[in-house]
Amino acid sequence: MSKLLLDVLNRKKTKRVPFWLMRQAGRYLEEYRKLRQTTKSFFDLVYTPKLAAEITLQPIQRFDMDAAILFSDILVVPHAIGHEVGFVEGEGPKLDALFEKKRLPDYNLKQASKKFDLVYETVRRVRGNLDDRHSLIGFAGSPWTVATYMIEGGGSKDHVRSRSWVLEDMQRFSALLEVLVEATVEYLLGQVNAGADALQLFDTWAGALPDSLFDICVIEPTKEIVRRVKAEKPDTPIIGFPRASGSRYLDYARLTGVDAVSIDASVSPEWAAEKLSPHVVIQGNLDPAALVVGGSVLENEIDRTLKAFRHVPHIFNLGHGIVPYVPVENVRALSVQVKNFRRAG
Amino acid sequence: MSKLLLDVLNRKKTKRVPFWLMRQAGRYLEEYRKLRQTTKSFFDLVYTPKLAAEITLQPIQRFDMDAAILFSDILVVPHAIGHEVGFVEGEGPKLDALFEKKRLPDYNLKQASKKFDLVYETVRRVRGNLDDRHSLIGFAGSPWTVATYMIEGGGSKDHVRSRSWVLEDMQRFSALLEVLVEATVEYLLGQVNAGADALQLFDTWAGALPDSLFDICVIEPTKEIVRRVKAEKPDTPIIGFPRASGSRYLDYARLTGVDAVSIDASVSPEWAAEKLSPHVVIQGNLDPAALVVGGSVLENEIDRTLKAFRHVPHIFNLGHGIVPYVPVENVRALSVQVKNFRRAG
Repeated sequence: MSKLLLDVLNRKKTKRVPFWLMRQAGRYLEEYRKLRQTTKSFFDLVYTPKLAAEITLQPIQRFDMDAAILFSDILVVPHAIGHEVGFVEGEGPKLDALFEKKRLPDYNLKQASKKFDLVYETVRRVRGNLDDRHSLIGFAGSPWTVATYMIEGGGSKDHVRSRSWVLEDMQRFSALLEVLVEATVEYLLGQVNAGADALQLFDTWAGALPDSLFDICVIEPTKEIVRRVKAEKPDTPIIGFPRASGSRYLDYARLTGVDAVSIDASVSPEWAAEKLSPHVVIQGNLDPAALVVGGSVLENEIDRTLKAFRHVPHIFNLGHGIVPYVPVENVRALSVQVKNFRRAG
Repeated sequence: MSKLLLDVLNRKKTKRVPFWLMRQAGRYLEEYRKLRQTTKSFFDLVYTPKLAAEITLQPIQRFDMDAAILFSDILVVPHAIGHEVGFVEGEGPKLDALFEKKRLPDYNLKQASKKFDLVYETVRRVRGNLDDRHSLIGFAGSPWTVATYMIEGGGSKDHVRSRSWVLEDMQRFSALLEVLVEATVEYLLGQVNAGADALQLFDTWAGALPDSLFDICVIEPTKEIVRRVKAEKPDTPIIGFPRASGSRYLDYARLTGVDAVSIDASVSPEWAAEKLSPHVVIQGNLDPAALVVGGSVLENEIDRTLKAFRHVPHIFNLGHGIVPYVPVENVRALSVQVKNFRRAG
């Protein structure tokens, strides 16, 4: 039996629109919260294949999405190459901050495989428990977004320190990009070898860049990762998500070589269907706020989104991740409505 | 003597480019930090005309910007109409959260004047101490951005609660907008009567809106404020700053009636000069990160920005506020370079 998600990524005509939801495995599910309580830290979950696999499958068991996405974290890559990463409960990640250092630490790409192996084991377990209809999406953070956490030492409101660090010494930044690209390519290929059907690159903070740095920070490293992954795995589709990129989504779609672009809700689906579709498959872009509200508001927003993409290849998704206070019944309503929608032609 | 900033806002040709910097009065200045220590809370500064006036003038005394901007806060309006607002040191503002309430509280527009009077007194003091060359910019938060703080109870990373609240009950949201528009118009007119030469509307979180809500949350309330302020004060220029609006800056420039649009660094100055200049004067858009770095990086970025706007009316500014760790000498270098630049023609 063929996989609906892969059919759309390969631009085959399908009757139904495949769907999955960013952060579909997470705190809004009580079965996730229950498992989370059994471990000390968030990273313990990520690096325990049995638990990570179980969490990956939880939303599929409830809502039968067309794809499972590996339960993991974009900070696995810096952590694996030897950058200190910790999670403080309720505060998010805390990392060693490059901003306070004059030179780049010596990262160790060879030791990374040990951490990666645990994730590959998760992928194998998930693949073994998914039936043929369901795709499994592997993922990594994009270099710019991962770099912001490494530079700032955690999340940031404005990413001024990250951009300052880039502007201050382009050579040092290029060296960091090179390490991240190298590790990310290895990591993604490993996930494909373990059973991932498709890959997604999360560039959550792409929108924080000035226009003059978008190329060097987003387009170029993404292009390089896509090129190197495709050289080994030409048939594995890659979805890119340079969040909040506005009109720059078009450059990303034209220049990076990704098969699909995931878009947030700040761009209109009509614009995306017209401008991006000639270049890539589109994934998105329901506002997560509509999923919080539910009812007829949710129904109308889903309908508007589906109809805007009726004539182009489309994977239904949110514009950003599910928030923890989303009522489970709204996710159920979404899954029913999207499955019942029939595409044009 | 004429004021350079007003000349440009009135689209008169000028030899030199006027400049000021968002958050130019603030923590990066030691004279600000010293004054800040003498008061208990941030709001004490805002509501003490003697101190607020002194802070407003501090950057002018050091760097001779072409405009002073009133030292105040966008939360004065909700505070004045009776919404609880407090500031927790190091954590930012804490407000009563509308998200937790079923209905809109009874706001009291009449009592607002008492708080506003203290701000008008600051404006009078500043005007009395500025010479004729310097403009004084009054300001307010735009309704959407102010509403996000009232709905969420403070700042937010994703504004999902704000958007949910809007989607959930449009009538309730319209009622809130009406109160905010009413109070903001009164507040801005009061600032002009007290001596403000121009006004700026800060819509810091405009970029957090899905395309489908941009009109109702940003364009319409801004248009209404501009219409009502201009009805009384047709000669007072209004600058709008719907931050991170991407291509939606164009709708804002065409539809709201503002005289100038302040743009962030995510849009290229070349795009803005071509697309926005036919409709509005442009203010912006140096990345605050370049001001952190200084040296030749800063020099090149300033030069690139000035040259991109060489043939169109331009007010030099940052794309967003100064961050507290900006070295004072970089602000001095900026002021010298911008003053020495000569426009085309």
